[in-house]
Order: sequence, then structure tokens, then C-alpha cells
Amino acid sequence: MGEIIDGKRIAEAIRGELKAEVESLTEKVGRAPGLGVILVGDNPASKVYVRHKRRACEELKVFSEESLLEKDAPEERLRKRIEELNADEKIDGILLQLPLPDHLDEDAMVSLIEPAKDVDGFHKLNLGRLLWGRELFVACTPLGIQQLLLRSGVEIEGKHVVIVGRSNIVGKPLAAFLMQKKAGANATVTVCHSRTKNLAEVTRSADILVAAMGRARAITADMVRSGTVVIDVGINRIPDESRKSGYRLVGDVDFDGVKDIASKITPVPGGVGPMTIAMLMSNTVRSFKMRNGIEL
Amino acid sequence: MGEIIDGKRIAEAIRGELKAEVESLTEKVGRAPGLGVILVGDNPASKVYVRHKRRACEELKVFSEESLLEKDAPEERLRKRIEELNADEKIDGILLQLPLPDHLDEDAMVSLIEPAKDVDGFHKLNLGRLLWGRELFVACTPLGIQQLLLRSGVEIEGKHVVIVGRSNIVGKPLAAFLMQKKAGANATVTVCHSRTKNLAEVTRSADILVAAMGRARAITADMVRSGTVVIDVGINRIPDESRKSGYRLVGDVDFDGVKDIASKITPVPGGVGPMTIAMLMSNTVRSFKMRNGIEL
Repeated sequence: MGEIIDGKRIAEAIRGELKAEVESLTEKVGRAPGLGVILVGDNPASKVYVRHKRRACEELKVFSEESLLEKDAPEERLRKRIEELNADEKIDGILLQLPLPDHLDEDAMVSLIEPAKDVDGFHKLNLGRLLWGRELFVACTPLGIQQLLLRSGVEIEGKHVVIVGRSNIVGKPLAAFLMQKKAGANATVTVCHSRTKNLAEVTRSADILVAAMGRARAITADMVRSGTVVIDVGINRIPDESRKSGYRLVGDVDFDGVKDIASKITPVPGGVGPMTIAMLMSNTVRSFKMRNGIEL
Repeated sequence: MGEIIDGKRIAEAIRGELKAEVESLTEKVGRAPGLGVILVGDNPASKVYVRHKRRACEELKVFSEESLLEKDAPEERLRKRIEELNADEKIDGILLQLPLPDHLDEDAMVSLIEPAKDVDGFHKLNLGRLLWGRELFVACTPLGIQQLLLRSGVEIEGKHVVIVGRSNIVGKPLAAFLMQKKAGANATVTVCHSRTKNLAEVTRSADILVAAMGRARAITADMVRSGTVVIDVGINRIPDESRKSGYRLVGDVDFDGVKDIASKITPVPGGVGPMTIAMLMSNTVRSFKMRNGIEL
């Protein structure tokens, strides 16, 4: 059986390193790094994420400020809040929890965030910088995937990375990131999606296969070549009557079928998921250093 | 032998269409679309490009304004010129001819161009918009490659496009463009480069192969599967004593070797080259329409 890449443990190690760094930076600068989190409405999943972020800030002693706006908050209020955080010297990173309620234009709201505080890496200027090869911030999930690989001893340079799924928060920025001529990247990158012909043939050509299309257990054993490293970004609920909740979480990879073929594989949960928040913290510390002229 | 994709003829047809459009738009709006071109120094190749752009503007009756700055012009002068063009109501598109002399920071200067007038599509906000799937302007060479394919009857959707080369002006924006879920794109996209292992194996998996690494005749017959559509972006000088100039131009593809294997192939010169200026004109007209609230 392939080695399980333990995202929970790796994320924990990263948070530990960041905690030590925050301590010394706070002493040096005279204030802690600060993260401003905005949540609009009461989407249950979003509330869970925001809670996890709050806990990570507490653990790392990062200053955090939460703004909770009611679900029918007018655009003008959200705009004003973003602008206040942009101007707030104590705030190094701004996180606008998505999705927003339907009456708000996500694209326009994300564009209001000062790019130098855009620790989610979703501002189009930051996406453009990433593609160009001069990034300020890499989006948290792509960055987390890179760290999972590197910290599991998987070399990325020269490898063929096949990404299934072209979302704006995972597939596309991950492709832009890993194709750069840089250490920890420099991969041959293929992006597949719903219109890809002979998908199994393409996925079987991967050295590193990233499943990020959001379809439960869609990557099956016949689509994976022996020895491939498999990263599963999916989080899908499937009915499970044996559970009190009535469901359980599975990834985009058929874990039970693929685990014996892959050389390494991430589980769901406990793989990519925990890395995302660790990378948000990492980006916040990065922003703090850049804003204070401290070498990265 | 494969069909030759005649870029010169296709570019001519596009300029013809644009000319008719410019005529009717000029009548409607009361002024012609305007392109501001800035050339710093006297790089001979740049001067040739600028002359070609001037001619295209004349042909299409697009207003053009050239700013020639001496090669040691201080950054402040260039900055001021860009800002004047940003503010100039008659100017819809701004083209800063690259490369700039060494004392000027290209990245910083391109970032000064108002994104809504960035008809070259090099501003990072526009690259980010392209990757995100909400583009204002697509860089001219990637857009020209798409048009060459579509106007030669090559369907892109669902095809495997293999791009060799990851420059910021061709490979990376082309990949970002063709992977989008849009008509005329929607391809499976692979980006290869100097660190790609088994390059021939990857290029042989292409339905559409784009050579854009800037190495004379590096794509040889053994790297191309029968029936592939081959797009050659390279322009390389190689010594040729039979010519008065002492050199001739060849592409990144070994044309003589590959032409019998490819189903369609672009020549060098006369393939991608002429499309780039046609697309610059197309982007200028696009900008004119957007700035005047005319449907695209």
C-alpha cells in the first residue's frame, strides 16, 4: 500500500514553525501580525471555516479581527469594511470568506482588497503576478499542495503534474504556480477537465496527480499508473446511514481502490484540508514581513 | 504533405474585417480608435515592429500617435508619457514597445499602463483576469494563435494542446487562455519547457503542438505524431551565406522534417508573425468599443 501523506501532521508542523516565527517577529516589530476576517451571512460551512481560522490565530498568537455582517448587508457596508481593513495598520491580511450571499458581487468585492493584504491570493493582480512569476501571495490551497509534496519528500521539478479540474481557487492557480521556473515548481503541467478526451490516458501519464474537480471518487484505480503520487483536493458528502449525521466525507479519488497503486496518497479528510489554513497563516506572516521590510 | 496555414492571408482577412468595422465605428462615435505607441531607444528590431504597427494603423484608418524617447530617457519621462496617454481621451490602446533599455524597469513601466488601455495584455491585472476567465484583453500572440487555428478549421475544444515554452508573452498566457471553459478554448493544456523529461513523448501526445521556446528547429520529426496541427511561434536567425544578409529566419520547428507528418503547419515567416499585429489592431478596436459602451 502507498504511503499516506498526513496533512494534519504536516500542517501542525508548519503551524509550530510559524508560531515560533510570530513570537520573534512580534518582539522585533512591537506588534503581532494581524488578520482581518469578514463573514457575511450565516452559511454553516463558512462559520466552521471562520472558527478554524480563529483557532489558528489564537494558537499562533496572530491578532485577529472578525467582522460579521448580516446576510442581507448592503454592498456599501461590505465595501466600507474592506476599505477600513485596507487602511488599518494593524491588519496585514484580509480574508473575505466566500461564498458571499447572491446579492453581492464576489468578483467586485475581492477586487477591493488591497493586493498587498490579499493573503487568499484571489485578487486578479495577484493571480497575474503568479502567472508572470513574480508572486506576492500564492492562493492557500495550491501553496498547501506544494508544501504537502515537498515535506513528504516528493520532488516536483521535472515531474509531470496532471491537474484534474480548473477552478479559480485550485486548478488554475496551481497550474500557474507549478509551471514556473523556480525551485519547488518547474514541473511539466497538464490541466484536464470535463471536456478532456481520454481522461484516463492523461491521468495515467502523471507522476503527480491532483484531483480537484469536485466529483466524489471520480478518480478510479484504472486511471492511475503504479507509483503515482496522488493528491486529493475534493471534499464531497455522500450518504452514509451508519453515521449519526447521515453522511460522510469522501474525496475526488476512490481512496480504497487507488491507495494500493499510488506511491503516496492524501486521505480525505486529513490531507489537503488542514494545509489550507496553515498556508493562510503563512501568507499572513509573509505579508507582515513584507509590510515591515523584513527579509522573506 | 500537411496543409500550410497561411498566416499572412488570414491576418490580411482580419485586417480587412477590422477596416470595415473601424469605418462604421468611426462614423458612429465621431472619432477613430486611437493607438499610442511608445518606443524608447533605437533597437533595430523594435523600429521594424513599430513601422509595421504604423502601417497597420494607416491601413485600418486607426489614429496612431508615436512617442519616440531617446535611449537614455529617464524613467520619469517615460512614466509621464504613459500617464499622459492613460488620460488622453483619443487614445484607446497603449503599446509600450519592449524590450526597454536596461536602465528602465519593464515590469514597473508596464504596470503603469491603464489596464483598460493595455491592448498588449501584459499588465498583471489583465493576466490575472485572463487566468480567472474574465479577460479584458488577451495578449496578441496567444490571441493570434487561437485565430489561426479557428480560421483554419481546427477545433480547439476537447483537444490536447501541448505548448513548448513558458514565456510570459506566449506560453503562459496561451495556456491560461486555452484552458478556459469557453468557446474557442476548452482544451486540455500541457506546458513543457527546458526541465521537461521525455519531451518527445509529451509532444507526441499533442493534437495541437505549439512551439514557443525560441530554439531554432528544435522540434524535429520524431517529436511529432502523424496528423498533429503544428504552430510555430519561433523566429530565429541562422547563418546563411547564400543570402546577402548572411542569415535567414527559421522557426522552432524543423519545418522540412515535420511538414510531411503534420496535418497542418504554420511556416516561418508568414505564420504566427503577421497575426500578432492584426490582433493588436483587434484589441485596439475592442478597447474602443468597451470605452464607448458598444457591444463586443
